[in-house]
Amino acid sequence: MYDYDDKPHHECGIFGIYAPDEDVARLSFFGLYALQHRGQESAGIAVADGRGINLHKDMGLVAQVFTEDKLRPLHGHVAIGHTRYSTTGSSKLLNAQPFVVESALGPLAIGHNGNLTNGTTLRNELFQRGFGLSSSSDSEVIVQMLAGGPGQSWDERINALMQRAEGAYCLTILTRDTLYAVRDPWGVHPLCLGRIGNGWVVASESCALATIGAEFVRELQPGEVIAIDGDGPRTIGLHTAPQRALCLFEYIYFARPDSHIDGNTLHSARVEAGRVLAQESPVEADIVIPVPDSGVPAAIGYAQASGIPYSEGLIKNRYIGRTFIQPDDRLRKVGIQLKFNPLSDNLRGKRIIIIDDSIVRGNTSGPMVKMLRAAGAKEVHMRVSSPPIRHPCYLGVDMATYPELIAHRMDVAQICEHLGLDSLAYLSLDGLQQATRAQGFCNGCFTGNYPVEVSFVDKHAFER
Amino acid sequence: MYDYDDKPHHECGIFGIYAPDEDVARLSFFGLYALQHRGQESAGIAVADGRGINLHKDMGLVAQVFTEDKLRPLHGHVAIGHTRYSTTGSSKLLNAQPFVVESALGPLAIGHNGNLTNGTTLRNELFQRGFGLSSSSDSEVIVQMLAGGPGQSWDERINALMQRAEGAYCLTILTRDTLYAVRDPWGVHPLCLGRIGNGWVVASESCALATIGAEFVRELQPGEVIAIDGDGPRTIGLHTAPQRALCLFEYIYFARPDSHIDGNTLHSARVEAGRVLAQESPVEADIVIPVPDSGVPAAIGYAQASGIPYSEGLIKNRYIGRTFIQPDDRLRKVGIQLKFNPLSDNLRGKRIIIIDDSIVRGNTSGPMVKMLRAAGAKEVHMRVSSPPIRHPCYLGVDMATYPELIAHRMDVAQICEHLGLDSLAYLSLDGLQQATRAQGFCNGCFTGNYPVEVSFVDKHAFER
Amino acid sequence: MYDYDDKPHHECGIFGIYAPDEDVARLSFFGLYALQHRGQESAGIAVADGRGINLHKDMGLVAQVFTEDKLRPLHGHVAIGHTRYSTTGSSKLLNAQPFVVESALGPLAIGHNGNLTNGTTLRNELFQRGFGLSSSSDSEVIVQMLAGGPGQSWDERINALMQRAEGAYCLTILTRDTLYAVRDPWGVHPLCLGRIGNGWVVASESCALATIGAEFVRELQPGEVIAIDGDGPRTIGLHTAPQRALCLFEYIYFARPDSHIDGNTLHSARVEAGRVLAQESPVEADIVIPVPDSGVPAAIGYAQASGIPYSEGLIKNRYIGRTFIQPDDRLRKVGIQLKFNPLSDNLRGKRIIIIDDSIVRGNTSGPMVKMLRAAGAKEVHMRVSSPPIRHPCYLGVDMATYPELIAHRMDVAQICEHLGLDSLAYLSLDGLQQATRAQGFCNGCFTGNYPVEVSFVDKHAFER
Amino acid sequence: MYDYDDKPHHECGIFGIYAPDEDVARLSFFGLYALQHRGQESAGIAVADGRGINLHKDMGLVAQVFTEDKLRPLHGHVAIGHTRYSTTGSSKLLNAQPFVVESALGPLAIGHNGNLTNGTTLRNELFQRGFGLSSSSDSEVIVQMLAGGPGQSWDERINALMQRAEGAYCLTILTRDTLYAVRDPWGVHPLCLGRIGNGWVVASESCALATIGAEFVRELQPGEVIAIDGDGPRTIGLHTAPQRALCLFEYIYFARPDSHIDGNTLHSARVEAGRVLAQESPVEADIVIPVPDSGVPAAIGYAQASGIPYSEGLIKNRYIGRTFIQPDDRLRKVGIQLKFNPLSDNLRGKRIIIIDDSIVRGNTSGPMVKMLRAAGAKEVHMRVSSPPIRHPCYLGVDMATYPELIAHRMDVAQICEHLGLDSLAYLSLDGLQQATRAQGFCNGCFTGNYPVEVSFVDKHAFER
Repeated sequence: MYDYDDKPHHECGIFGIYAPDEDVARLSFFGLYALQHRGQESAGIAVADGRGINLHKDMGLVAQVFTEDKLRPLHGHVAIGHTRYSTTGSSKLLNAQPFVVESALGPLAIGHNGNLTNGTTLRNELFQRGFGLSSSSDSEVIVQMLAGGPGQSWDERINALMQRAEGAYCLTILTRDTLYAVRDPWGVHPLCLGRIGNGWVVASESCALATIGAEFVRELQPGEVIAIDGDGPRTIGLHTAPQRALCLFEYIYFARPDSHIDGNTLHSARVEAGRVLAQESPVEADIVIPVPDSGVPAAIGYAQASGIPYSEGLIKNRYIGRTFIQPDDRLRKVGIQLKFNPLSDNLRGKRIIIIDDSIVRGNTSGPMVKMLRAAGAKEVHMRVSSPPIRHPCYLGVDMATYPELIAHRMDVAQICEHLGLDSLAYLSLDGLQQATRAQGFCNGCFTGNYPVEVSFVDKHAFER
Repeated sequence: MYDYDDKPHHECGIFGIYAPDEDVARLSFFGLYALQHRGQESAGIAVADGRGINLHKDMGLVAQVFTEDKLRPLHGHVAIGHTRYSTTGSSKLLNAQPFVVESALGPLAIGHNGNLTNGTTLRNELFQRGFGLSSSSDSEVIVQMLAGGPGQSWDERINALMQRAEGAYCLTILTRDTLYAVRDPWGVHPLCLGRIGNGWVVASESCALATIGAEFVRELQPGEVIAIDGDGPRTIGLHTAPQRALCLFEYIYFARPDSHIDGNTLHSARVEAGRVLAQESPVEADIVIPVPDSGVPAAIGYAQASGIPYSEGLIKNRYIGRTFIQPDDRLRKVGIQLKFNPLSDNLRGKRIIIIDDSIVRGNTSGPMVKMLRAAGAKEVHMRVSSPPIRHPCYLGVDMATYPELIAHRMDVAQICEHLGLDSLAYLSLDGLQQATRAQGFCNGCFTGNYPVEVSFVDKHAFER
Repeated sequence: MYDYDDKPHHECGIFGIYAPDEDVARLSFFGLYALQHRGQESAGIAVADGRGINLHKDMGLVAQVFTEDKLRPLHGHVAIGHTRYSTTGSSKLLNAQPFVVESALGPLAIGHNGNLTNGTTLRNELFQRGFGLSSSSDSEVIVQMLAGGPGQSWDERINALMQRAEGAYCLTILTRDTLYAVRDPWGVHPLCLGRIGNGWVVASESCALATIGAEFVRELQPGEVIAIDGDGPRTIGLHTAPQRALCLFEYIYFARPDSHIDGNTLHSARVEAGRVLAQESPVEADIVIPVPDSGVPAAIGYAQASGIPYSEGLIKNRYIGRTFIQPDDRLRKVGIQLKFNPLSDNLRGKRIIIIDDSIVRGNTSGPMVKMLRAAGAKEVHMRVSSPPIRHPCYLGVDMATYPELIAHRMDVAQICEHLGLDSLAYLSLDGLQQATRAQGFCNGCFTGNYPVEVSFVDKHAFER
Repeated sequence: MYDYDDKPHHECGIFGIYAPDEDVARLSFFGLYALQHRGQESAGIAVADGRGINLHKDMGLVAQVFTEDKLRPLHGHVAIGHTRYSTTGSSKLLNAQPFVVESALGPLAIGHNGNLTNGTTLRNELFQRGFGLSSSSDSEVIVQMLAGGPGQSWDERINALMQRAEGAYCLTILTRDTLYAVRDPWGVHPLCLGRIGNGWVVASESCALATIGAEFVRELQPGEVIAIDGDGPRTIGLHTAPQRALCLFEYIYFARPDSHIDGNTLHSARVEAGRVLAQESPVEADIVIPVPDSGVPAAIGYAQASGIPYSEGLIKNRYIGRTFIQPDDRLRKVGIQLKFNPLSDNLRGKRIIIIDDSIVRGNTSGPMVKMLRAAGAKEVHMRVSSPPIRHPCYLGVDMATYPELIAHRMDVAQICEHLGLDSLAYLSLDGLQQATRAQGFCNGCFTGNYPVEVSFVDKHAFER
């Protein structure tokens, strides 16, 4: 599959709803629809009706996985939904979520966003306790830890789980009659609570609340466990880590621009990052253009702060997606043009500042620069609205490995030369934090300092 | 789905092969092809190559589930295959086999034919030990009992399993380099060993050996555990029960007529059952006709023993299978004619003996008798080459429940009247045992005496 | 695709119904279901409601092509259905039927069973008249000849078509409000009329009438054209050829045994062919066995006439069908065993008479004989209940080409030796005609004398 | 299906390539990929190799319709491709293109973009000549007119076609060895010629040339017919109409912004339209925001000309597309939020100018305005970068019918009130023509003056 993409990939979007007066499966569908950008490989919804749990999940986009026929049997008053990204290797139906099991305490379903840093340890403990695991996912580890956890109630077990699980994990947990929502002690990924009529909703991002007409109530605190049943939501645990560590890439790229985190709309934060970037790294030029679509807000901010006109210079094929057709030699040379084409009128004879939100491997930036020059750009200056990514992520973001990361192999000057740029600047970490106006981020991919100890396991280690 | 069928249903066919010189996945495919009659709902093959296990399984017939593209990645030298029948409710991909897990001792796959009588107990034990189970099948119970069993080797764990598992279970077990074959202590279902070139094969029925050109070696003994690796097969355990209890329905209906069990070709045993039936329950008539296809051998035997000419009186639509199109009122009246049509020439003015191998619910026999009379039959005498089925099966055959079983609700005279017959006779249990010439059968469905204590659990108890 | 089959192949089954009080699409479905043996590659139903025609057709078996969702939009009071066989090369959706077009006289749909002997001539005439044809099928030729035919009414045009079309063609034709049924002047293939409530049905075989509960009225005469509307059926044309030429293979193999043609039930005719064969070619032996399933009636007849006991000697895998998995070298040697397995008990030490209904290429008979001997048969005598096939068919049966036909290349003694038989005899043409008790057959494949002049065109000539 | 969309819809994208040294099917695939925005319902490629034509087409996006397996059999040196939009009703495989027929002059395939204004007349002529037509598309009319046209060569026939066909039609025509490209006499839709290595390409838009690395050569003139074979392209006909009539909506919305027509890059023309709009209809405000994505260039232009800052105010769900899940009552109220969500930070307390490229039915604008106000906008002024659409299109754009067009039912003041706006202004037709800097447009949808006489036929008139 060819995707011509140089972005980190999210792991998942999660959703949960407790609403006896609503069609919870249908609302879950539209909630997942709004979270589709967090994962496009599989989708699933599990619904409980007080007795049991019904599930439908499959590979594909939310709108492909669900039809009225598939939605119809999903009766109940409480539901969770999940949409999953994964690299090709592990895109197997076995890994699709929610995971549903029968257990001593009754049926249990979970949807998981994130990655455990001590997943291998916990997995090995399960092996030693005699469990056979059918998937390569941390999420199955969590399910089995809950099914076999200490304590005689789900409340106890979920709190017990949080004593052991390290790393990034937002969870929605469904029992036969209750919805639980869990945010890891570091608060790596966002999770928010909303109100819909007489019911309640939790979702990875506030955009899912807005989409289904739910009212935003608040974000879960890092380490918070909420149980939602007929009595409404109540906090049943709070497991705070020494430090908050919200993933900076939620701000930079992952979350939808209309979502808000910690009171910041992501779009505004990204515009602000562009403004700071303009202050940190000005350059004389004729126009500011974004790498569409994710570079748009920062480009707008850069243009505003610099006074250099905002324009468009590259058109993205809206329909490009995964294709199984291999480019032949000729097309391989064409490469990036399958995804982006230049607007020569806007580029010809101009000094261009091109704004990208991040560079991971650097494999698409070079061809893009070449394309801009071929279209007549006199100078090409790249400004990146995040710091150089020098380290992989171990908390659930599919970032790349050390040897793949261009900023691990080269310094900025080398990258500038490698990409054929007239100048290159990244936003400083300080600048990024200033733009995001929040405290307590994970900046592991920029600094190598992770909020939790990481075990260096390959994510495909247990794939069959 | 409409199937117009009144037969018990098998649970599964299993296959295993250890053959470093062969394309084991391809041979598994053709082996399963020969076992298709034992299960048409899902099919799967797992292959090990000394390092890991690769799996493909899906809903559908063997020939639908596998294409060259699906077979290609299944490299290795040892494989197991499975084909599964199940009632509609539980026909979920989650229940398709082989089951594959990663465990403390490495990867593990199993294929299972049968039903544990203490499955609920074992399942509850797993729940108490903290396992979450994702399917409703006993087979997952077995996998987890092996993954978490006592003992530090697979040999030990498999033998330990056999101390606990009660009921019907033939298993093929695949580890990363070894094939195991297990037959339960009662020998409820058949399992045989064959030789192919320098390799070895196990299969539910000898017809699978014949189909792929393997040479029949012997049947596994009840309670026997065989391990097959580079040193060939060796018996690593023998767990005999107080009594053998081979399922009589393997003789009556399940096993393919060209398979042989305990030295008897099934076809011969069925012809013989017809002969005994003729001696036990003669009647004057003009022709003997079978209910096709399963009644053919007994009808041939009845005709031979009685001297009444064998003929055909009903034609079966070879292409009938499951359809999702509902008959309307008119067609519902037509009913059985969608599946069988009468040969009026052969029936007109004749006294007919119609031979069926069994009657379960009795829902198709009445319309069939009416059809024969409408086609001109002067008298219709039914002879059934097995005793009345008065009890459900708890060892893995989907027979029917007490209220559904016509012979539970009525005696033979009542059934005769209910079906509109001139006379009706079943083969006696003695007669059946005489025909099958073997010792040690389970006759629970005829007598209510099961070889093992049964717990009366509904098979859908754990379905979600 | 591997099919291990040595039979001629039919082209199609057709069905039509005019019944304002019935669900005509549903009845068409079950009618096609009963005609499935005449074609398994594609299926389709077109329904008219007085204004327009709605169509659904696709590749696959009838039960695969239609679901309730696909049936639902097919409203109306008059319908035609079609099920099509074709060799792999031409199995394209473009060739699936019914064909539906809009024309000067309104919408038109046809279902066609047969093959025009002057198809190439007619096709070229259409080309010369400027038509572009999108399929390789004669049926599109017929549609366009009707759409552009002489005459201002469908009645006139259909009669005009019959002046030009030569060869085998049974047609059901649907206009916006009328059903037409056409049988070619030679009556090559059967077509019958039935009554269902206040409506009327036409079908390739009487078994389709029986299946849906319709009452057989009569067969169409060769050359007859019937129009059916609110006034019931009326004959609007009768185009008789100098001679009748019913395809003998309808008697030998194609038609379902419970269908009747010219007053003969096919099953009886086939039993009778076996009886005549026993008289013509007796041989001392211990048992008579059929090649299942098509050899069964003749084997019963042979056994009855010869007094030698009827038995079964080969078991056919009921689930075998097309598979896309290639046998490897080992399996290629096994070959026929994928489809048939011997019943050694019945064969061991015995002198066997094996009855087949026909031999086309002879590619399966040799391995079958070898298998019987390997299973212990002392002598193997083959009797074939039809004459040697020495010529291809040009009237719509996919028989084989001259070089493929074993009886074209060898005389009976050579075939006997080639197949490794102790003796071989075919039924004489006289014997076959005696058994079928009817006049006016096409025996072109036995004699090379075809009822119409044939143009030697390859059926794939126009394939793209 | 729910699409929440208020745009006109294109009919098709076409592509053709003559390139003996290239993998023409693969290049066609990537060419269609770049033209995907012109049609998302079906895709197809036909390839000729000097002898015959091979075709694959199916419903779906280009990347869904083609896999390597489907591409592999498409050998040859010359190909055409097609991607088609259509409303639900007529989205049938029968209407998918290319159309391929066999004819007196050999095989023929066409891909068609547009709509004939005299299609009904030509269709009726074909009916009168006796043709049966299997689809409702003008394209089949064209195929049959070519197959049966006057003249003994394709050159003659194509030129003859152009004497008769009126309206919008760009064609790629494939014979067994030659590629033809045709642009209608009015030049309604664009069509351009490019060079790739030693071969030649034609495509609806220049972006397809850029995508595959072909060099733009020139546009076809209105009425031009080009034949391309081993001797390169040669003009074989030029059929000019009294006036040019390029579809203005190609400039406003259809063509990809990076494509260029008549020397104008569409993006620049759209930016310019925004500038002119700012001059024509200024308003005091705080920010200018686009309706994404199509409103972006005009919003940029409006911002530049007005000096009011450009910003984003609405986020579009990139993954929204067709879904078969029905919104329930709650969600229906939410409506437009499934597709767009507001950026409250940017809107709160602000006076907003929102730029859309066009309004067709007006069904999404009202909810969007309401959403902007709910997000805190103090004033909402809408500016539309095209004139009011008061008339349907009869030249191949699926625009809407008179009663659906909001600007047919209301004047601008009424629309402004209906949509709840503070002010509303459309670009004048003069302003649009000034922005597009070109001569000879079709402005029928704005003025009701069509370049050719139109017959008022419903596009579904011939649907079955």
